[in-house]
Amino acid sequence: MKSHDIQLDSNGKLQHFLTIEGLKKQMLVDILDYAENFSSLGNRQAKKVPLLRGKTIANLFFEPSTRTRTTFELAAKRLSADVLNININTSATTKGESLLDMLHNLEAMQVDMFVVRHNSSGAAHFIAQHVAPHISVINAGDGRHAHPTQAMLDMFTIRRYKQDFTGLRVAIVGDIMHSRVARSQIHALNTLGVPEIRVIGPQTIIPCEAAHLGVHVYHDMHLGLQGVDVIIMLRLQRERMQGALLPSEHEYFHMYGLTEEKLKMAKADAIVMHPGPINRGVEIESSVADGPQSVILEQVTHGISVRMAVMAMALGRMSVAESNGEQD
Amino acid sequence: MKSHDIQLDSNGKLQHFLTIEGLKKQMLVDILDYAENFSSLGNRQAKKVPLLRGKTIANLFFEPSTRTRTTFELAAKRLSADVLNININTSATTKGESLLDMLHNLEAMQVDMFVVRHNSSGAAHFIAQHVAPHISVINAGDGRHAHPTQAMLDMFTIRRYKQDFTGLRVAIVGDIMHSRVARSQIHALNTLGVPEIRVIGPQTIIPCEAAHLGVHVYHDMHLGLQGVDVIIMLRLQRERMQGALLPSEHEYFHMYGLTEEKLKMAKADAIVMHPGPINRGVEIESSVADGPQSVILEQVTHGISVRMAVMAMALGRMSVAESNGEQD
Amino acid sequence: MKSHDIQLDSNGKLQHFLTIEGLKKQMLVDILDYAENFSSLGNRQAKKVPLLRGKTIANLFFEPSTRTRTTFELAAKRLSADVLNININTSATTKGESLLDMLHNLEAMQVDMFVVRHNSSGAAHFIAQHVAPHISVINAGDGRHAHPTQAMLDMFTIRRYKQDFTGLRVAIVGDIMHSRVARSQIHALNTLGVPEIRVIGPQTIIPCEAAHLGVHVYHDMHLGLQGVDVIIMLRLQRERMQGALLPSEHEYFHMYGLTEEKLKMAKADAIVMHPGPINRGVEIESSVADGPQSVILEQVTHGISVRMAVMAMALGRMSVAESNGEQD
Repeated sequence: MKSHDIQLDSNGKLQHFLTIEGLKKQMLVDILDYAENFSSLGNRQAKKVPLLRGKTIANLFFEPSTRTRTTFELAAKRLSADVLNININTSATTKGESLLDMLHNLEAMQVDMFVVRHNSSGAAHFIAQHVAPHISVINAGDGRHAHPTQAMLDMFTIRRYKQDFTGLRVAIVGDIMHSRVARSQIHALNTLGVPEIRVIGPQTIIPCEAAHLGVHVYHDMHLGLQGVDVIIMLRLQRERMQGALLPSEHEYFHMYGLTEEKLKMAKADAIVMHPGPINRGVEIESSVADGPQSVILEQVTHGISVRMAVMAMALGRMSVAESNGEQD
Repeated sequence: MKSHDIQLDSNGKLQHFLTIEGLKKQMLVDILDYAENFSSLGNRQAKKVPLLRGKTIANLFFEPSTRTRTTFELAAKRLSADVLNININTSATTKGESLLDMLHNLEAMQVDMFVVRHNSSGAAHFIAQHVAPHISVINAGDGRHAHPTQAMLDMFTIRRYKQDFTGLRVAIVGDIMHSRVARSQIHALNTLGVPEIRVIGPQTIIPCEAAHLGVHVYHDMHLGLQGVDVIIMLRLQRERMQGALLPSEHEYFHMYGLTEEKLKMAKADAIVMHPGPINRGVEIESSVADGPQSVILEQVTHGISVRMAVMAMALGRMSVAESNGEQD
Repeated sequence: MKSHDIQLDSNGKLQHFLTIEGLKKQMLVDILDYAENFSSLGNRQAKKVPLLRGKTIANLFFEPSTRTRTTFELAAKRLSADVLNININTSATTKGESLLDMLHNLEAMQVDMFVVRHNSSGAAHFIAQHVAPHISVINAGDGRHAHPTQAMLDMFTIRRYKQDFTGLRVAIVGDIMHSRVARSQIHALNTLGVPEIRVIGPQTIIPCEAAHLGVHVYHDMHLGLQGVDVIIMLRLQRERMQGALLPSEHEYFHMYGLTEEKLKMAKADAIVMHPGPINRGVEIESSVADGPQSVILEQVTHGISVRMAVMAMALGRMSVAESNGEQD
């Protein structure tokens, strides 16, 4: 899957945002810089710019997610775009028309961008391969494959606190191999030059895959957290518990839940991140989630800025410099 | 519950609108005056002002209500705000995150106002106590406690027809003690100086509570309506019928339904109000609901103006005078 | 049903758009010309005009239809109107208030236009007869009666390809007598001067009704398609299959499905139309649906322009000439 080809237009600008894999470092830095511009908007009286006025953005959610859909909707509205929310349950797609017929119909309605969430890996790629040339596709999470806007908001948050990526030790904790968030984070951290990425989790992490991704595997959380600058907790997918792939919630918390005691292993100024929604007392202790090192709610705020940046870049195909002069 | 404290900011301006209880008369008059300004908008070609452009308002409806949600949505859109509709069924809140985590996430998305409907009394207060200092909360109905925007649109309607509150006899008819609408109406009428408030309904009205609220209790509707200027009918909560707390619908209509014959007991120029949706032939006869003394549909129109006023005051914290110069 | 009376205001301008029946040719031409103006918008950077800014349009869908609702919603948003989506399932209408009470409430909220879809023939007329004088009603499909915006987008598409209606042979294929789309198409084609309209379908087509509508009936598709300029396929209503009114899907496709082989009977430059969503392999072969003579997706695009035209004419009551100068 040469995903870097399909993501860029003939001028090398970002047309689709499907995965971090294959994107150059400068592209990721551009996204972060662009997001930085939008970030100041939130503090103004009117959090709105007319950048995408007259553009139509369709949220195609084949998998329900109020939170992610809401942040994309807010990002689109703050760029003054018109938003269509289309929730597709399986039954409707089965009964009615094929996925491609539906896409072509939305294209014919002159929709400019599809924000796609789907439980099949590769769904956003598939859609990007089949849409008309002027349309942009943003992957809002596909199966176990990728969740690139989540990864970029995490990078934004890390840069805000640590400035430079090239001296960092970052630990990702949880059921990494089944997590699209973790996969995208690892690609982004690697691309941005983080020298040491650790993944901490149960035996379901397969070492050879980890080596391929250039990460260090720890099954012991105390060891894994030693001296890290950034701790990224993953959300426990509770439905995975049932297949006996993971220990009980109680046992899981004991081994991989982030407690104040385990947090002491990290650097004193380490930040704690989580994509939300958090399962308090399962993957993270409440006192840590709400504690001074937690930047979990800031991640949510940054998520809007990063999504505005990606949408504006893909639909506007303009440079960061141009975005600086934007006025409401 | 010192609700008047939490509703005002440090300058004494309205930040949250949770209950009528504890608000000063001048604040209620300000809301009515402000709403009067917005009321003329409806007759213009473009019913829109840019007052809240760039603000984000989230409708958090834990209890379904198309009508109330629609009026808040229209009010917000006519103020040019961006609106998020979030319908929360119990299952979702249970499965996912806690209420507070959800609120903090919406705060982090830089939502400026929550419009809250909940079936638990005190829910809007609880939320107002826990949100960030710059956020406003509007109570769109909480359990049996309060429904202050409904009460204020009723006051707006009364003032339009009767000008002065201080010479009025007002009767509220129905299952008053279980009605959040009635509670808010009684507080508003008292605060605005209505000298005689009567409540008319079945035995479930407990006299000592009534005395506390400063109202006169009537179980006989003919007696209760004698000489009143305003009749406020409540909507019959049919689900309350089952517990044998109320008589049958037929019997209820016989005793407390507003008929043309009973209406004759009131003053000749008495107005008839109802929060809607009406149960024709249960709490009100069709010929009365559609008759010359009915102002029921005007209440709906006023509801938009009053909600615009409350939203603009809470988010703009500006004076009525300033709002006069508002242009589209 | 003197539908032409109710559709026009006292100046003879289009107030409601309920049915093609009874409208003068010039009115249909005006709609097409107006839509032509909006059609160029889609190619501009910002597909938006401020024509209906401050107007409120309510989509009242008593019958679910994501596609039709979406096109009306997009049309309204591109005219800068505020849109309310109100999905009414039967239970809600039964439980709550009567249809008329609901309409009067929406009127009181100063909604300017109702876009109505209902499974009862005549529902849109009924609503138009009962709304306040300043409100417009657009029929988005009522029972088996009419679907006038669909018919007008078909006319728009035909005019784009064939310029002149007065020399055309048009064939409509499918279960015509149960189709609101076909009824509206036949009225529009007749009014615009198409000299030869053929209907092709199973025995359920009753010849005397056909004669009344001025169409020629064919039960043999090969004969019916001979020498036609335009082929309009209808969507097979699969639920009608069960009542044994229609043959099996397989048999239906054999007899009335449009294949490459049958398409050869038509003129070499004949266009193929379908209102969508298409049932591939049931009423149309995929190679035809996606083939060079198919204009199916263009119909979708034209649907937005035609709906913008109808909405702008009904709410603006302005002439086509005035619309030319519209700027974003």
